[in-house]
Amino acid sequence: MILDGKKISEEILLEVKNKVYDLHLSLAVIQIGNDQSSNVYINQKKKLCNILNIAFIHHKLDLNISEKEVLKLIDVLNEDQTTGILLQLPIPNHLDTKKIQNRINYKKDVDGLNNINVCNLINNKPGIIPCTAKGIMTLLNKYNIKVAGKNVVVVGRSNIVGKPISNLLLNSDATVTVCHSKTKNLAYFTKNADILIAATGKKHLITNSMVKEGAVIIDVGINKIDNKLYGDVDFEKIKNISSYITPVPGGIGPMTIASLAENLYDAYILQQED
Amino acid sequence: MILDGKKISEEILLEVKNKVYDLHLSLAVIQIGNDQSSNVYINQKKKLCNILNIAFIHHKLDLNISEKEVLKLIDVLNEDQTTGILLQLPIPNHLDTKKIQNRINYKKDVDGLNNINVCNLINNKPGIIPCTAKGIMTLLNKYNIKVAGKNVVVVGRSNIVGKPISNLLLNSDATVTVCHSKTKNLAYFTKNADILIAATGKKHLITNSMVKEGAVIIDVGINKIDNKLYGDVDFEKIKNISSYITPVPGGIGPMTIASLAENLYDAYILQQED
Repeated sequence: MILDGKKISEEILLEVKNKVYDLHLSLAVIQIGNDQSSNVYINQKKKLCNILNIAFIHHKLDLNISEKEVLKLIDVLNEDQTTGILLQLPIPNHLDTKKIQNRINYKKDVDGLNNINVCNLINNKPGIIPCTAKGIMTLLNKYNIKVAGKNVVVVGRSNIVGKPISNLLLNSDATVTVCHSKTKNLAYFTKNADILIAATGKKHLITNSMVKEGAVIIDVGINKIDNKLYGDVDFEKIKNISSYITPVPGGIGPMTIASLAENLYDAYILQQED
Repeated sequence: MILDGKKISEEILLEVKNKVYDLHLSLAVIQIGNDQSSNVYINQKKKLCNILNIAFIHHKLDLNISEKEVLKLIDVLNEDQTTGILLQLPIPNHLDTKKIQNRINYKKDVDGLNNINVCNLINNKPGIIPCTAKGIMTLLNKYNIKVAGKNVVVVGRSNIVGKPISNLLLNSDATVTVCHSKTKNLAYFTKNADILIAATGKKHLITNSMVKEGAVIIDVGINKIDNKLYGDVDFEKIKNISSYITPVPGGIGPMTIASLAENLYDAYILQQED
C-alpha cells in the first residue's frame, strides 16, 4: 500500500490555510550563494507561502558574506514582525552553520534546528520539530501505523533527518537502531526492521533483499540524476514485499513542506504567548 | 576479562590530581531534601574533592524550597569563584529539573546536562559530557576496545546515561540500538550485540541467554537490595561467556567519579578562556 504523502500533505495544507489565511504571517528565507538545489527548494517554499497567504521574503546573500553580516540580519528578523526564519542549507564553509541557526529566536526557528528546539525534542518537551522528521511521524500517524514497541531502523544520522526522527521515535516508545555509512552488514539491520527509514541520499541503496516481508518503508531520499528523481529505496522491487511504502516523488517530500506550514503556525502561536 | 574500573579510575584521578592540586578549584553540590542514596553519592563526591584538594561546598536545601530560591542560588554560584555546580538528582516534583539545570552556566555544568552541553554532544562539538557516559567511553578506550562499526545495544534511554552514551557511540561510528522498557523481545537485540550497555536499574535483567559469546558487557546498574549491590547484569553467569565485562561494584561506578574529576578540570579550562 502506498503512503500517499501528496494527498495527506494537501489535507494538512488545507487545515493550516484555514487557520493562517487572515493572520498575515511571514517567512524569511536566508540563502547564501546560488546553490541550484537550494533554488528549487526555495521556490517550493515560495509556492507554499502563496497558497497560505504568507508573505515570503527571500534574502539572497552573497557567497562571500561575513558571518557578522548574517548574524546582524538575523538579529533584525528576530526583532521585527517576521513569523518564521529559515536558513537554507547548505551554506558556504567559512560560516558556522550551528552558530547561525542558534542565533535565530527559537520561537521563529521553523526548521527546528536551533539548540533549544533540538533539546526540547530530546527531552520530549513541546517545541518546533524539524520538518522532515515531523512529516514522517504525521504520515505514519495518518495511516494509523503504530511505532511503540516496533523495531525501527533509521539509515542516516544527519542533524536534519536521522537524529531528530530517531529521537521522535524513541519518545514514541519505538526500539530504534541508527545505521550509517560506517555500519557493517547494513542488510542484517534493515532485514529485521518492522519500519525502515532511509535517509542517506544514495540512490536505491535499499534493495529487495534488504527488507523484511510486510515491513513499512519510508524513503526520505531525493536523488536527482539526469533530471530524474530517485529515492534511497528501490521502489519497484520493494513495493510488493512491503506492507506500506512511500513513493519518490510524492512521499516524504510533500510531507516536509506540509510540516513547514504547521511549524509556521506553531511559531505564530509561540510568539503570541509573549 | 574484567574491565577494572577501579584501577583505571585511580590512574585517572592521579592524572587529574597532578593538574588541579594547586589550582584551588571548588565544587558546589546542590541537594534538595534528604534522599538516602543522594547522601551516599554526595559523600563520594566529597571524598573525591578531598583527594584532589578541591573545595567542597554542600548546599543542602529544604525539601519545600521554591524554584525561585534554587535559581537564585545558582545565579550566585554562576557569578562567584565556584568552578563546578552540580544539581544532585532526584529533586522534588514541584521543581522543574531541566529549568534548573539550564540555569547553570554551561562552563560550570560538570554534569553535562544543560542544553548547551547536551547539544554540543549531539553536534559532536567539544563540551562537558555527562559523567557516566564519559566514563564508559574512557574505560572502553583504555582497554583498546573499538566501537566504530560495532553493533552496540544500549538498554535504557535516560537523559543521564542512555541518551548521552548513545550519542557518544554514534559520534564514534558505532551502529547504535536503543532498547527500553517498551522494547519487545529484548533478548533478540541483546543477543546480537557486540557491545551491550545495560543502564536500567533492574537487578540482573540481563541473563546469560541474552548475550552473545565474546560480547563486551558494560553494566551501569547499581541496585541496592538488602544492603548489597547488584548490577543490571548477572555477572557470575555471564563472565565466562563475554570477552570483557564490568563488575558491580568496581566497574562503571568509579569511572563516573573519575569523569567528574575530569569534568571539573575541563570546566576550569573553559572558564579560563573568558
